[in-house]
Amino acid sequence: MPGSGKSIIVEVAKERGYDIVVMGDAIREEAERRRLEPNPENLGKIMLELRRSEGKAVIAKRCFPKIEEKTKSKVIVDGVRSLSEVEEFKKNFPKLSFIAVHSSPETRFSRVYRRRRSDDSENWEVFRERDMRELSVGLGDAIAMAEYIIMNEEKLEAVKEKVREILRRIEEKWMR
Amino acid sequence: MPGSGKSIIVEVAKERGYDIVVMGDAIREEAERRRLEPNPENLGKIMLELRRSEGKAVIAKRCFPKIEEKTKSKVIVDGVRSLSEVEEFKKNFPKLSFIAVHSSPETRFSRVYRRRRSDDSENWEVFRERDMRELSVGLGDAIAMAEYIIMNEEKLEAVKEKVREILRRIEEKWMR
Repeated sequence: MPGSGKSIIVEVAKERGYDIVVMGDAIREEAERRRLEPNPENLGKIMLELRRSEGKAVIAKRCFPKIEEKTKSKVIVDGVRSLSEVEEFKKNFPKLSFIAVHSSPETRFSRVYRRRRSDDSENWEVFRERDMRELSVGLGDAIAMAEYIIMNEEKLEAVKEKVREILRRIEEKWMR
Repeated sequence: MPGSGKSIIVEVAKERGYDIVVMGDAIREEAERRRLEPNPENLGKIMLELRRSEGKAVIAKRCFPKIEEKTKSKVIVDGVRSLSEVEEFKKNFPKLSFIAVHSSPETRFSRVYRRRRSDDSENWEVFRERDMRELSVGLGDAIAMAEYIIMNEEKLEAVKEKVREILRRIEEKWMR
């Protein structure tokens, strides 16, 4: 969910030698191809249009070549938003593990506010609407079906340690 | 989600002196009123019918008198399944805190299988269908918006300690 702080997983994964694929990049590339400014409005529209014309898992599919061309043995994909995407990834990468990051709405709101990026919310109602938009594409269903949920409420170092432990566990499973 | 082991929260809450209200009891009472056997099929039908005729938060509303008549100062409600219910409760009990319990689908499946109650699933497909039914009423959205998510994968005592800590934190907030 917005403001849950999923970048903390990406950071730890980088430290552990993972390659990173950001799902949003597939949409940004489509914006570039269409010579549209990559602002949140255009990106949102492109995403909806792609999902309509090429199916719910379109962004996942566009990430396959990005994953294949990575050279490291471990890859993390940032930005899964629905069960359709999870299933699409699992079909092609059966060893996939699926991690969600969770913070309370209150914590997420205060983070989004302090951050104040151009696409961050101006107030609670806007924030709430954005939450509902994310849920409407199926993000809640994906979170409920995650293999791991990391609570990101504590101090940064404690959360990072939890992420490390989970990545270790996943890597051990890969080795078996 | 089915098999996530939410009863662990109820157990710890009982130890800490909470009164318990089980949302499913409201449906079982309706079955009794209608002189129907309280099997999963009838209970499922009654729930859908009540939601259609009295709105998505009908079961939450039917729990209000049950909560009011409790004598202890702390009450836990077991069985919230959608954001509409959360909002309904919050309107009437603004100090409400909202806890979700999470386990991986794999863990939940093995638990549901070992338990083998009459309404437990016979195989993965049936289990998966039941998951999707729960998500279709909005359970995933509720989980994504929870204030706390407790991962129930570790040893029982470790999870119980996490629950105790969260209940302590919630009670501290109530005191303020």
